[in-house]
Amino acid sequence: MANQFIYNSSQLSYAILGTGALGGYYGACLQKSGLDVHFLLHSDYEYVSKHGLVVESKNGDFTLPQVQAYSETSKMPPCDVVIVALKTTQNHLLPQMLPNLVKENGVVLVLQNGLGVEDEVAKIVGSNRVMGGLCFLCSNKVGAGHIRHLDYGEIKMGEYAANYQTAGITKRMQQIANDFESAGIKMQLAEDLLLARWQKLVWNIPYNGLSVVLDARTDELMGNSHTRSLVEELMWEVVAGAKSCDRTIPQNFVETMLQYTDKMKPYRTSMKIDYDEKRPLEVEKMFGNPLKFSQARGANLPKITMLYQQLKFLDSRNSS
Amino acid sequence: MANQFIYNSSQLSYAILGTGALGGYYGACLQKSGLDVHFLLHSDYEYVSKHGLVVESKNGDFTLPQVQAYSETSKMPPCDVVIVALKTTQNHLLPQMLPNLVKENGVVLVLQNGLGVEDEVAKIVGSNRVMGGLCFLCSNKVGAGHIRHLDYGEIKMGEYAANYQTAGITKRMQQIANDFESAGIKMQLAEDLLLARWQKLVWNIPYNGLSVVLDARTDELMGNSHTRSLVEELMWEVVAGAKSCDRTIPQNFVETMLQYTDKMKPYRTSMKIDYDEKRPLEVEKMFGNPLKFSQARGANLPKITMLYQQLKFLDSRNSS
Repeated sequence: MANQFIYNSSQLSYAILGTGALGGYYGACLQKSGLDVHFLLHSDYEYVSKHGLVVESKNGDFTLPQVQAYSETSKMPPCDVVIVALKTTQNHLLPQMLPNLVKENGVVLVLQNGLGVEDEVAKIVGSNRVMGGLCFLCSNKVGAGHIRHLDYGEIKMGEYAANYQTAGITKRMQQIANDFESAGIKMQLAEDLLLARWQKLVWNIPYNGLSVVLDARTDELMGNSHTRSLVEELMWEVVAGAKSCDRTIPQNFVETMLQYTDKMKPYRTSMKIDYDEKRPLEVEKMFGNPLKFSQARGANLPKITMLYQQLKFLDSRNSS
Repeated sequence: MANQFIYNSSQLSYAILGTGALGGYYGACLQKSGLDVHFLLHSDYEYVSKHGLVVESKNGDFTLPQVQAYSETSKMPPCDVVIVALKTTQNHLLPQMLPNLVKENGVVLVLQNGLGVEDEVAKIVGSNRVMGGLCFLCSNKVGAGHIRHLDYGEIKMGEYAANYQTAGITKRMQQIANDFESAGIKMQLAEDLLLARWQKLVWNIPYNGLSVVLDARTDELMGNSHTRSLVEELMWEVVAGAKSCDRTIPQNFVETMLQYTDKMKPYRTSMKIDYDEKRPLEVEKMFGNPLKFSQARGANLPKITMLYQQLKFLDSRNSS
């Protein structure tokens, strides 16, 4: 039965799809805490099967000389919790990867940015086997199997229910959260996953988008009165988008995000890093889907639309 | 008396403020046709006083070994027609330059981009001594006193009246247009200068703006479906801006501009050239003033506003 304990007592097993800056960090923490973790790797497979993972972290460096590494999901055992830590630009691979990998009573936990990713996964594994998580993490992969955790790391996790209905707090959420907390990862449980995703977009849409289009760090965007206003206007459009989905982001949330960014160290966003590295951008999930959700409900978000159009142009040229 | 012949029979004298790609080309054509032309120069003053001007043109190359060159307006004689061919970013100099330079019965002809430039000049010389011209010219300054005319050259000229009231066709317009036509420059007379300016912005706002923000030529912007849509949406916002000023741009004008651009050779806009050369951008006249005009009349142009904000950011960083 859905949304119950996955297993009553025995330990959960974890699959990590995408052992990069994010999946590699969280997976390594889980294994270090004693859990059974299986890592899917692509370019680093050979290296990591031989040498394991190295994590440099502000919370303390550690090494895992041996990890269960795989180059294909077909070779991995079915797991209780399948963590999707791929870039969303790889999500076309999920229909092949997920069905045999997640146990009957298991769950897929999507640790990706943007909106609508759980909808896609629900189509593959059923809407009662999906959860979403929003990661507030600064980390980089600095070499094969070598992760540098710079700051933060908290995950805000929520249950998915069909059409993003509010699903509340479930026991299996708590069970997984306990595992993460035991691994030293701060967790927050969200009663309403869609609200949590819209809230994260309040930050992600303006800063990720404008950092790419204007080749700018957060401090540069905040230091110019025109782009600072534009950031705020984009944030209000996100609030309006959430509203169109019947989700109310509190009025002071925008001001809080602006102040939070003012206090941050100068920051190059993840989308800007992808762009600079000539990797495909997560435009569809972070911009395209929020626009689709809102437009289907009659909301017009002109500045986010324009940012989306600009990013589609730049992304297309960057990959050619 | 205003808007009459400036002189009944004798030849008009011309001052050219700004002897660059535009002022240099038109001024040289006028002098070649036998008119009395006085050129204000800045960095090229020494060179041009000694060597004159060279014009390479698709209509035929020519040289003017001797021109009346000046480094300060105070040394220039009062003229019948004072042509402002400076970049609008230099317009803070006009209050010093114009008052003694334009004859009592003379007129200032503003050959600049954007909106609101005639308002500024009217404050200096009175609203009955101002005209505006929209130049459809491809030319570059390739060296000191050396102008390369690539294509086009037509000027659409209109009388200014206080608050951009429609001023119709006047005799002095026709007289000046005759001089230009005799110099081989195709002229169009506009009955409504404000309408003509808004029409030119239909092209200038999307292409100049996006070419800078996205580092793109016209063909690149047209070749991507997302930016092509954005170009068109920006054009419709310009049409809405014109509407707020009670000026109706015909429905098919947008489609005509898109088709016209499709047929153009790949083109780097003038604002992009300024940006690449690290010169200040004409953001205020081309974006800021159309927004001010529209907002004062209750129109909201969100995408042009966003383009303005992005350009202000880039312009500020480019000059620092």
